[in-house]
Amino acid sequence: MTRAADTTNRAVARACPVTVLGLGAMGSAIARSFLDRGHPTTVWNRTAAKADALADAGATAVPTAADAVAASPLVVVALLDGTAVEQVMTSVGTAITGRTLVNVTSGSPSQARANERWAREHGAAGYIDGNIMGHPPCMGTQNILLTFSGSGSSFAAHEGTLRELGTVTYHGEDPGAAAVEFLAQVATSYELLIGYLHTLRLLRAEGADLAGFTDRFGASLAGYPALLTSMVRAVESGKYGPDLGSLDVQAALMDDLIGHRESLGVESVRMREVKKLMDRRIADGHGHQGFSGLFELLAPQGEA
Amino acid sequence: MTRAADTTNRAVARACPVTVLGLGAMGSAIARSFLDRGHPTTVWNRTAAKADALADAGATAVPTAADAVAASPLVVVALLDGTAVEQVMTSVGTAITGRTLVNVTSGSPSQARANERWAREHGAAGYIDGNIMGHPPCMGTQNILLTFSGSGSSFAAHEGTLRELGTVTYHGEDPGAAAVEFLAQVATSYELLIGYLHTLRLLRAEGADLAGFTDRFGASLAGYPALLTSMVRAVESGKYGPDLGSLDVQAALMDDLIGHRESLGVESVRMREVKKLMDRRIADGHGHQGFSGLFELLAPQGEA
Repeated sequence: MTRAADTTNRAVARACPVTVLGLGAMGSAIARSFLDRGHPTTVWNRTAAKADALADAGATAVPTAADAVAASPLVVVALLDGTAVEQVMTSVGTAITGRTLVNVTSGSPSQARANERWAREHGAAGYIDGNIMGHPPCMGTQNILLTFSGSGSSFAAHEGTLRELGTVTYHGEDPGAAAVEFLAQVATSYELLIGYLHTLRLLRAEGADLAGFTDRFGASLAGYPALLTSMVRAVESGKYGPDLGSLDVQAALMDDLIGHRESLGVESVRMREVKKLMDRRIADGHGHQGFSGLFELLAPQGEA
Repeated sequence: MTRAADTTNRAVARACPVTVLGLGAMGSAIARSFLDRGHPTTVWNRTAAKADALADAGATAVPTAADAVAASPLVVVALLDGTAVEQVMTSVGTAITGRTLVNVTSGSPSQARANERWAREHGAAGYIDGNIMGHPPCMGTQNILLTFSGSGSSFAAHEGTLRELGTVTYHGEDPGAAAVEFLAQVATSYELLIGYLHTLRLLRAEGADLAGFTDRFGASLAGYPALLTSMVRAVESGKYGPDLGSLDVQAALMDDLIGHRESLGVESVRMREVKKLMDRRIADGHGHQGFSGLFELLAPQGEA
């Protein structure tokens, strides 16, 4: 491994030594992907046994996080949560001096901003916050989505290495921006998926064909990118066309929808909220507009 | 118009006389689509003036719903809601004898079943319940989705005419089945869209790029048909793989997600529900499974 680090600058740039802290499913997949691309890879995990398979594959396993950080200019942190990151960073201390820290542990924007301050105060070359969406075995393919933000110069210096992991977007100098994007993507996905599961409950209670419904709903999603684009344009301009149909017509359906769910014991919290918002928009004289106008009533600008 | 109805059986089958009751956006689009395909078309609307444009285009406008029903073997009802349907059907009474009634007014499965009983008791040739998804101006194209259920023999007799309106699926003899499908599709769509609007609020509060987020989320939807198929298989088999990642890992993110939304005054009702369900699945020893296993905890079988 040391031989690769001792070659010309150009070769170093092509196979920069990297360190991975944390060897859960995501951290292990990252380390393996770096090894596959020929990077000298140093790994550390709190439970050392998790490093065995990677060591067999050519990684250098070291006993402390500080040792691991000292080994490479680029340090990727993939732990369970922000608390674990804090603990490990405290143990690393000034070993981070001169290193670029890329933290792909899921966390909040404010944690990302606090991590950036810590890294700066401890002499790091730069801090990049990242988030990863996708199935760990797909690491190193375009099916892994990585969002990064933070130090632009550090990102530029290591962009080639980071892009080896998947499809990368960079969201600017605010270290919290990648987490904002990630939390927004994840929440919208969960909204869709928990609503879908509740609807499967309704279909089962009705004795309907769950798989057939799923096929049809899945096929309908092809129309959503265009719909969402028209909705975000309406939100940004404040000009709300009738998108899914006028609220006057849409609202007429809501009592049936809510009554049906409640008659089967299926939850209807979102449907009751939607109905209430539609009624308020209609009362405000916007019944000819569409669904996207509900945005005007949502907190924080609207009532909570 | 009467000339077309007097021609050979074959020609009648190709351009069967039709009646449309209710000339809102959807009813008008249906009547116009039938006219365009050469059907002798009779129309009625409570507010008669709404029939003027269709009469100019060749439709026969008549003064009562009973007159309109008497004019054609196929009667399509497109009113605002189930209450309007009840009122109009009461005014029609036994004029429905021998006619096939196709009701595309949005309503509940129990309303559809009650309408079928009413039609049977008044001597109708058959009752078909239908629901329409799509933008009225697209009527007559494959972008309009129509779900039907009810009398199979009546559906077979008029299938050709109904398929002229858009992409048709038939969901069996239960007159309530089309409404179940429709309400399930609409609810899942609203879950996605209201979650998306709340997330736009979050992004605006963060000063993030709403349109960029929308593009990325829209692009990610291409992966959902496969994900939803794997989830419905898990639900049907009771074997819950790690789909989006194990719940142990997913749950670690939820406090950040909820805390971030609450710090910005953005609602988090679904996220708090998801977190609670994840915690319960983990406590029950299912932390290695994925999101789809939350289905087991949803009402009616789980706790409400």
